[in-house]
Amino acid sequence: MGGERRAVVLLSGGLDSATVLAIARAEGREVFALSFRYGQRHAVELDCAARLAAAQGVRRHAVLDIDLRAFGGSALTDDIDVPHGADPGREGIPVTYVPARNTIFLSFALAWAEVLEAPEIWIGVNALDYSGYPDCRPEFIASFEQTARLATRVGVETGQGVKIQAPLMSLSKSVIIGRGLELGVDYADTSSCYDPGPDGRPCASCDSCQIRARGFAQAGVADPLLRRFGVERP
Amino acid sequence: MGGERRAVVLLSGGLDSATVLAIARAEGREVFALSFRYGQRHAVELDCAARLAAAQGVRRHAVLDIDLRAFGGSALTDDIDVPHGADPGREGIPVTYVPARNTIFLSFALAWAEVLEAPEIWIGVNALDYSGYPDCRPEFIASFEQTARLATRVGVETGQGVKIQAPLMSLSKSVIIGRGLELGVDYADTSSCYDPGPDGRPCASCDSCQIRARGFAQAGVADPLLRRFGVERP
Repeated sequence: MGGERRAVVLLSGGLDSATVLAIARAEGREVFALSFRYGQRHAVELDCAARLAAAQGVRRHAVLDIDLRAFGGSALTDDIDVPHGADPGREGIPVTYVPARNTIFLSFALAWAEVLEAPEIWIGVNALDYSGYPDCRPEFIASFEQTARLATRVGVETGQGVKIQAPLMSLSKSVIIGRGLELGVDYADTSSCYDPGPDGRPCASCDSCQIRARGFAQAGVADPLLRRFGVERP
Repeated sequence: MGGERRAVVLLSGGLDSATVLAIARAEGREVFALSFRYGQRHAVELDCAARLAAAQGVRRHAVLDIDLRAFGGSALTDDIDVPHGADPGREGIPVTYVPARNTIFLSFALAWAEVLEAPEIWIGVNALDYSGYPDCRPEFIASFEQTARLATRVGVETGQGVKIQAPLMSLSKSVIIGRGLELGVDYADTSSCYDPGPDGRPCASCDSCQIRARGFAQAGVADPLLRRFGVERP
């Protein structure tokens, strides 16, 4: 792998990060994939992340334990019920929002990038077909990049900080899916559901399942994950 | 405690954060103190943090486990030897630098502040008598504050993000010590050493011990921590 540019890729095991990982590999990056065990109820994501990392031949896949449950405040980590069947196009920030999650994840990625002397962090945020999280917007990513330049040894010594690559930012879900399929991503190895069964079966009714279903419908492709579980489209 | 403004205070157990905690309490804040168990060799800091939190009557003291050792790259978390007797005024960033540490700590503080609806985070960074860490400079703090405004629900919904209070930024160590003593801080309950003994005895020769010793000397006060251990000034 000598000569490849190093990159830390945030890999949740969801559809978007799976696609970002495939893009980074297709663009010749030596990938250090980073996942988090953060008290999420849907740890099936981490199984997906491990399979995706292996399939894409990453150099290393690290899973960090952090525990946001000590703070509470979100349906993804608390015992609040995930809303089902709500309109994903509604106003405001959903209760599934995890406080400062991408800031925390990017901060750890920054630490690893600095140790590895990797010039890039890749992240699968998307401002188009998303659930209204503030930390998925381009202005947030640009600001974090600026903060990272000021925070790190490499930024101080060279004036060049770590670049945050967010190649999905302005893509629709169907375009993301089309790009991933071209690159051979097996979306059966991804989990998008906020409330999956213990075997990874998607609920097919939460915001995230609905956004995913619309994406596959618009791409004109059957979702291999639904096919695996025999789940009907909502 | 009703009516007090809430604040998350980053509390390492060192001299600076002990002083910041006392200032925040003196200014009427209801404090939620946050410490980290991050694989540091000098866990004696956490005992200090607990005593300081109790002495200052914080509302809650949380200790989060994070493990930066998975990334390596610093004498504070690796098995690299801490340099002793070096000139703390030398050029460059010391090997005791922990990658992206303040970015990570502030990110967790931001998550807790958002859950608590606390409008402030207090941090004891200092750009004057410090060890040359990039993430202790005012431009870093200002940039993180901007990123925090863009990252969070409160920032999006109100345009007002969490304020980062860094009251020690431009103070000399001796002025910090003088302020803390006025506020009743017991500096025997603080740990500054990069390489203390298991009982908390400072080495008296690392960068941080030297900076602390100069601060007490310039303040014209004996360091109660040295008195406790009967350690001579270097």
